[in-house]
Amino acid sequence: MSAYPNATATATAATPSDDPACGAPLPVLGRDVTVPLVTGGEVGYAALDYAASAPALQRVWDDVAAYAPYYGSVHRGAGYLSQLSTDLFENSRRTVAAFLGCRPDDQVVFTRSTTDSLNLLAAALPARCEVFVFETEHHASLLPWRDARVSYLDAPRTPAAAVATLERALASRDPEAPALVCVTGASNVTGELWPVRELAAAAHRHGARIVLDAAQLVPHHAVDIAELDVDWIAFSGHKLYAPFGSGVLAGRADWLQDAEPYLAGGGASRTVARRADGGVEVEWHATAARHEAGSPNVIGVYAIASACKALEEAGFDALEARERSLVARLRAGLAEVPEVKVLSLFGDDAPRVGVLSFVVEGWNSSHFAAALSAEYGIGVRDGLFCAHPLVRTLLDGDPQEQGECGAPEAEPGARSLNAIRVSFGAGTPEEHVERFVRAVRELVSDGARWSYRTEDGRCVPDRGAAAA
Amino acid sequence: MSAYPNATATATAATPSDDPACGAPLPVLGRDVTVPLVTGGEVGYAALDYAASAPALQRVWDDVAAYAPYYGSVHRGAGYLSQLSTDLFENSRRTVAAFLGCRPDDQVVFTRSTTDSLNLLAAALPARCEVFVFETEHHASLLPWRDARVSYLDAPRTPAAAVATLERALASRDPEAPALVCVTGASNVTGELWPVRELAAAAHRHGARIVLDAAQLVPHHAVDIAELDVDWIAFSGHKLYAPFGSGVLAGRADWLQDAEPYLAGGGASRTVARRADGGVEVEWHATAARHEAGSPNVIGVYAIASACKALEEAGFDALEARERSLVARLRAGLAEVPEVKVLSLFGDDAPRVGVLSFVVEGWNSSHFAAALSAEYGIGVRDGLFCAHPLVRTLLDGDPQEQGECGAPEAEPGARSLNAIRVSFGAGTPEEHVERFVRAVRELVSDGARWSYRTEDGRCVPDRGAAAA
Repeated sequence: MSAYPNATATATAATPSDDPACGAPLPVLGRDVTVPLVTGGEVGYAALDYAASAPALQRVWDDVAAYAPYYGSVHRGAGYLSQLSTDLFENSRRTVAAFLGCRPDDQVVFTRSTTDSLNLLAAALPARCEVFVFETEHHASLLPWRDARVSYLDAPRTPAAAVATLERALASRDPEAPALVCVTGASNVTGELWPVRELAAAAHRHGARIVLDAAQLVPHHAVDIAELDVDWIAFSGHKLYAPFGSGVLAGRADWLQDAEPYLAGGGASRTVARRADGGVEVEWHATAARHEAGSPNVIGVYAIASACKALEEAGFDALEARERSLVARLRAGLAEVPEVKVLSLFGDDAPRVGVLSFVVEGWNSSHFAAALSAEYGIGVRDGLFCAHPLVRTLLDGDPQEQGECGAPEAEPGARSLNAIRVSFGAGTPEEHVERFVRAVRELVSDGARWSYRTEDGRCVPDRGAAAA
Repeated sequence: MSAYPNATATATAATPSDDPACGAPLPVLGRDVTVPLVTGGEVGYAALDYAASAPALQRVWDDVAAYAPYYGSVHRGAGYLSQLSTDLFENSRRTVAAFLGCRPDDQVVFTRSTTDSLNLLAAALPARCEVFVFETEHHASLLPWRDARVSYLDAPRTPAAAVATLERALASRDPEAPALVCVTGASNVTGELWPVRELAAAAHRHGARIVLDAAQLVPHHAVDIAELDVDWIAFSGHKLYAPFGSGVLAGRADWLQDAEPYLAGGGASRTVARRADGGVEVEWHATAARHEAGSPNVIGVYAIASACKALEEAGFDALEARERSLVARLRAGLAEVPEVKVLSLFGDDAPRVGVLSFVVEGWNSSHFAAALSAEYGIGVRDGLFCAHPLVRTLLDGDPQEQGECGAPEAEPGARSLNAIRVSFGAGTPEEHVERFVRAVRELVSDGARWSYRTEDGRCVPDRGAAAA
């Protein structure tokens, strides 16, 4: 299989723009923001970097703004606003539990992000725990297991191969030692969906547990922890239209209850007293508070709960249908540009969320991304997307830089050092996807209209130079 | 010295209410919020729990609201809003560094809170490091040093005794081992200021380093890391009128650069690659990013920077003068109520910020706090304030409960199990302090007007009962 699967062959035909499935986006902050173009004038900003950080839903912002004057200390304050805030905080926990379909004994721990959630779980592994993780994971899922023995599994090229690879690895492990599998729900690079249910079944068949990195999944799909039969789910508010600094780890309570508190401090400690020998004796909470030391980020947590409610009310059936339509439109548009090579692990037919990475023959990816921004007002991402081994695998081994930021032309056949990622979600209007496809087509056929150079590591328009 | 120092004797006389030093408070969110009284009607909420969580400055909220539509992914996004957000994030780092008077080589690391900042520093201690901490610290400063040898120092009863105690402890330590002193700038229980400069000098005389827990100091006083000559400062946004889930650890870069990354994940990793043996090779960043894995909380960080600017513009001279005036008014008012025993470590004359804890003879503290809320619309805190050893020391050893929540009368001479804390800051109008003093006087002289009972661990009005 080529590392540059060409999307042309099997891409779905573009959905006509009056397709009712492609209805109105959910209102998000920034939908009216315009940005200047280097070529003159302004244009509405097309935020197509949802996979990094999604804009806040208007509903989330409105809820936060309505609550903010009532903000107060939680848990121990005697005042009216403290009690209101405590109820809001703990009700948010229940809202998130319901959103994820948590089992009665599951705990919902509030963290700062998916990275934080997985580092918390890593700190809660039982002794001698083995961890199994595909090399294709985001660094947040790949790297936290610092105190464990980790088996890195090679990139599978089909969902079935992923399950088979995991089964083989688990079968050869020490059956007496506890084990954890960590897997993404949707790739932050390719957007492809992973066979979570099948991987969970394989893990459990072999007596292992499994945590789902759902950072890229929950904004796009209904997720049910019990139905998927995973042990934990981690996700971030800032990818779920709630960018106020909170994240979630939800799932089995036992490992969390048995672990040392993630942070040591107030809130996690039930009682603290000097001992006769001069030391300090601490009794820690056994509930979620055990891992939530410090004053909770009430606004961040409430924002996540608000997003959960907004998405449920919009309905994931409708959201998924709309997103499938936008993905199809994107893929059909890119398929008409032979120079565009879409990155894929599982092949063109694999279902994916609104996340897609690609390279353009003859172009430096940073240069291409800079031109999309400066000349079209489109915000995408370039680089390796905090998933270096995966992107390197998709770029076919040991890639060579093909031209500098300011010199886009490269030798024919040169390979890309990094890639371009376009990603979107519930707030994305059709126009952004259409403008993106048009911009790609124009840049490839006509080239950039401006000169670019590297400044502080960024590829930026060279405002000192004349336009190209 | 009594564990119940009576504030009556030496309290400063009340400042007349037309004192220009007691000018207008800074506008904060919630200043117009009214809350229902159990006795009927509504009243403006008096937020007097700033030491737990302060309301957002209106300026902070306005800045956040103005930025929110421009929110975008930071550091690697190519789009206009990503670049704007990246600049805003890194400029916020410079603003905080300037606010703290950081030295050129200091690092500003964004965390989620003071608790998080001190846990980060605890994870960055060099091998064999000894930690010296007074038992009087908040749990956030007392407990994070889990992997170190910790010397807990007995509560000093004067600032000079604090310095002498520390000197003695440091003199008897292993001079070859690295050492860290952790000390509060202002107590979260008594509000008393600690002799930070002198403690820093003592630490450095003995080759130790020192970290300042400035959570309760920065909202009230100008703090200069170089002038105090401390090695690190930690504080929280939610106590600095910026309650959006971020905190700060600022100071010496060396221990932080040499430590394992606090969280493992994207953002902290510069490059990640599979090794020939199947493992994974990681090169970590050496800058602040090393300890900031995951998508940064841009809004939380920007809110802190906005608060720093707002306080600097208001001027700490004026803020401190105003607060001294409010503190004097509070203390003079409480001094007229002999049943009120103000908790103090350093005595009545010790300078303090707008934080004061007390017990009331014959009253259960939770009951008293509940009545302040339900009958006067005043939000304070009751309990041990996440500083159990300190409060127990101040309550004179092994205190006995003196009556249940619903039965305030106790045996004469019985000691309190917990205390009541009143705390305020730049957003507090005089009326809140005056109402508080009047409410204390009325409750002590006339008793509560309503019945209370314990429900879910809270003391609440017993709405099923007739009014008392």
